[in-house]
Amino acid sequence: MHQEAPAALSSAPLLFQLIQTSSGTEASTSRPARPKPGLRPGPNIKDTGSRMRGTLGLSLSLLVCLTLGLLCVGLACVWSSRFRGGFGWDGSGLEFNWHPVLMTTGLVVVYGYASVLYRVPMTWGQSKLLWKLLHAVLMLVALLLSVVGLCAVFDFHNKNHIPNIYSLHSWVGLCAVLLFAVQWGAGFSLFLLPWSPLSWRKAFKPVHVWLGGSILGLSIAACISGINEKLFFVLKGGNHSQPYSDLPSEAMLANSLGIVIVAFGLVVLYVLTNKRWQRPEAQPQDGAYAVS
Amino acid sequence: MHQEAPAALSSAPLLFQLIQTSSGTEASTSRPARPKPGLRPGPNIKDTGSRMRGTLGLSLSLLVCLTLGLLCVGLACVWSSRFRGGFGWDGSGLEFNWHPVLMTTGLVVVYGYASVLYRVPMTWGQSKLLWKLLHAVLMLVALLLSVVGLCAVFDFHNKNHIPNIYSLHSWVGLCAVLLFAVQWGAGFSLFLLPWSPLSWRKAFKPVHVWLGGSILGLSIAACISGINEKLFFVLKGGNHSQPYSDLPSEAMLANSLGIVIVAFGLVVLYVLTNKRWQRPEAQPQDGAYAVS
Repeated sequence: MHQEAPAALSSAPLLFQLIQTSSGTEASTSRPARPKPGLRPGPNIKDTGSRMRGTLGLSLSLLVCLTLGLLCVGLACVWSSRFRGGFGWDGSGLEFNWHPVLMTTGLVVVYGYASVLYRVPMTWGQSKLLWKLLHAVLMLVALLLSVVGLCAVFDFHNKNHIPNIYSLHSWVGLCAVLLFAVQWGAGFSLFLLPWSPLSWRKAFKPVHVWLGGSILGLSIAACISGINEKLFFVLKGGNHSQPYSDLPSEAMLANSLGIVIVAFGLVVLYVLTNKRWQRPEAQPQDGAYAVS
Repeated sequence: MHQEAPAALSSAPLLFQLIQTSSGTEASTSRPARPKPGLRPGPNIKDTGSRMRGTLGLSLSLLVCLTLGLLCVGLACVWSSRFRGGFGWDGSGLEFNWHPVLMTTGLVVVYGYASVLYRVPMTWGQSKLLWKLLHAVLMLVALLLSVVGLCAVFDFHNKNHIPNIYSLHSWVGLCAVLLFAVQWGAGFSLFLLPWSPLSWRKAFKPVHVWLGGSILGLSIAACISGINEKLFFVLKGGNHSQPYSDLPSEAMLANSLGIVIVAFGLVVLYVLTNKRWQRPEAQPQDGAYAVS
C-alpha cells in the first residue's frame, strides 16, 4: 500500500505540493542516501532546484497535452459544422459528421487525458483508489463516445446502402475499439475489483501499460487514415469546389487536425514514458502499485 | 562502463548464454542480496526457472518479430509485383510500386529490427560498441531505403504532373522521415562520437528512446493511411474490376499487409517496453548505458 500524505499537505499551496511530490519521485528512481541515526537529511539546494525543474517540465507537458486535446476537439467540431454542414441523427451526411468528432474526442483525447491522470502531481499525495476510479470512469466515457461514433457511421452506411468494414481504416479502427473494450474489462476486473490476486495484478500491469500505449497508437493511425480517406471522398474537384490536391481551406483544416492529433499522441507518450514523472508508489521495486 | 563477459561465455552454448544473461537482467531490476564474505550465493531453482521462462518469452517475441517483419516485406512485394504489374524506374506506375515496398521495408521493418537489436540476448555478453555500430548502420540502411522510397513517389508524381505533399498521408509520412533523419544525426553525434559529454548522453537517452518509439508509430500511421489511399485510388470498380468495397483479393492482401504491419509494431513495442528484457547495463541506476 502506498502511504497517505499528511493532512497538512493537501491544504498546502500547489507549488509546495509539487515540490514535495516531485521529491518523492526522485527519491524512488534512485537509491536514497541512508541518513545517520538521529539525523534527518537537510535540504540540498541543487537537488531541490533540479526537482523543481523536473516538476515544472511535467506541469508544462500536461498543460501542452490539455491544450492540444482541446484543439483536436475544436478542429474536429469546426470541420464537421463549418465545412460539412453540421450535425444530425437522420441517416444523412449530418449523422456521419458525428463520427470524426466522437472518435477524435473519445478514442484519442479523453483516452489520452485518462492515460496521463496518474502523472498529475496534485494527485500524488492522495488515495490512489479515488484516481483509479476516475481513470476507469474517464476510460469508460472514452469507450462509450467511441461506440456512439461507430454507431453514427454504421447507421449512415446502412441507410445509404454503403458496405461496412471493408477499408483498412475501418479494420484498424475496429481493432482499436475492440482492444480498448478488452483492456477496459480486464483493467476493471484486475485493478478495481478487490478479490483479484496481487500476483495477477503484478503480472498484468506491464501488459496493461503496453496495451494502453498501443491502443492510443492504433487510434491515431485510424484517425489519420480516416481523415485522409474522407478528404479524398469529398474534395474531388468539380461543382465549383477545389480538389484536395489544391489544398483548399477544408483540406488545410483537416490536415492540421491530423497533425495536432499526432502531436497530442506524442506528448501523451512522452509524459507516460518519462520515468521521473511516474507516480511515486508506481515504482517496480516497491511492488505496491498494484495493491491500492 | 559495462563489464565485459568472460571469454568462455562467448563460446558457451546458446541456451547457457541465455540463462546467464537473463540472470544479469533480473539482478539489475531488483536489489541483489548481499552475499556473506567469502561465500558465493548458490543457485536458486525457482529463480533460475523464472529467469529461463523470461528469456524464452523474449526469444519467442523476437522470433515473432522477425517472422512478422519478413511477412510485411513479402506481402508488400507480392502486392506490387503480382497485383500492380511489378517494378521499374521509368516514371510509370512501376516506379511508384517501389514506394510501398521500400517504405514498409525501411521505415517499419529494418527500423523495427534495429530498435530491438539491444534486446537480443546473445549480444549482452559482448562489447556494446559493436552493437551500437550495427544499430546505427541498420538505422542508416532503414533511412536510405525510406529516402529512395520517397524519391520513387516524387519522381512518379513529377513525371505525371501529380502534385506532391498535399494529402495527410504525405504530411505524416514526411514528418516520420524528417524526425528519423534528425534522430539518426543526433543519435550518431551523441552516442557514437567519443567527445560528446556524458551528461548530454544521459539527458538525451530518454528523448532518444521516446522519439524512437514515436517515429515507429508515425511510420505505421503513414503506412496504414497510404495503403488505404492507394486501394481507394486503384479499386474503383468498372473495367471488369471489382471495387474496394467488394474486398477482391488485392484488397484482402493489402489490408492484411496493414494488419501485419500493425502487429509487427505492437510486438516491437512490447519487446522495447518490457523492463525485464532490457540489456543488463542499460538500467538507469548504474548510469553506464550512455558510456560504452
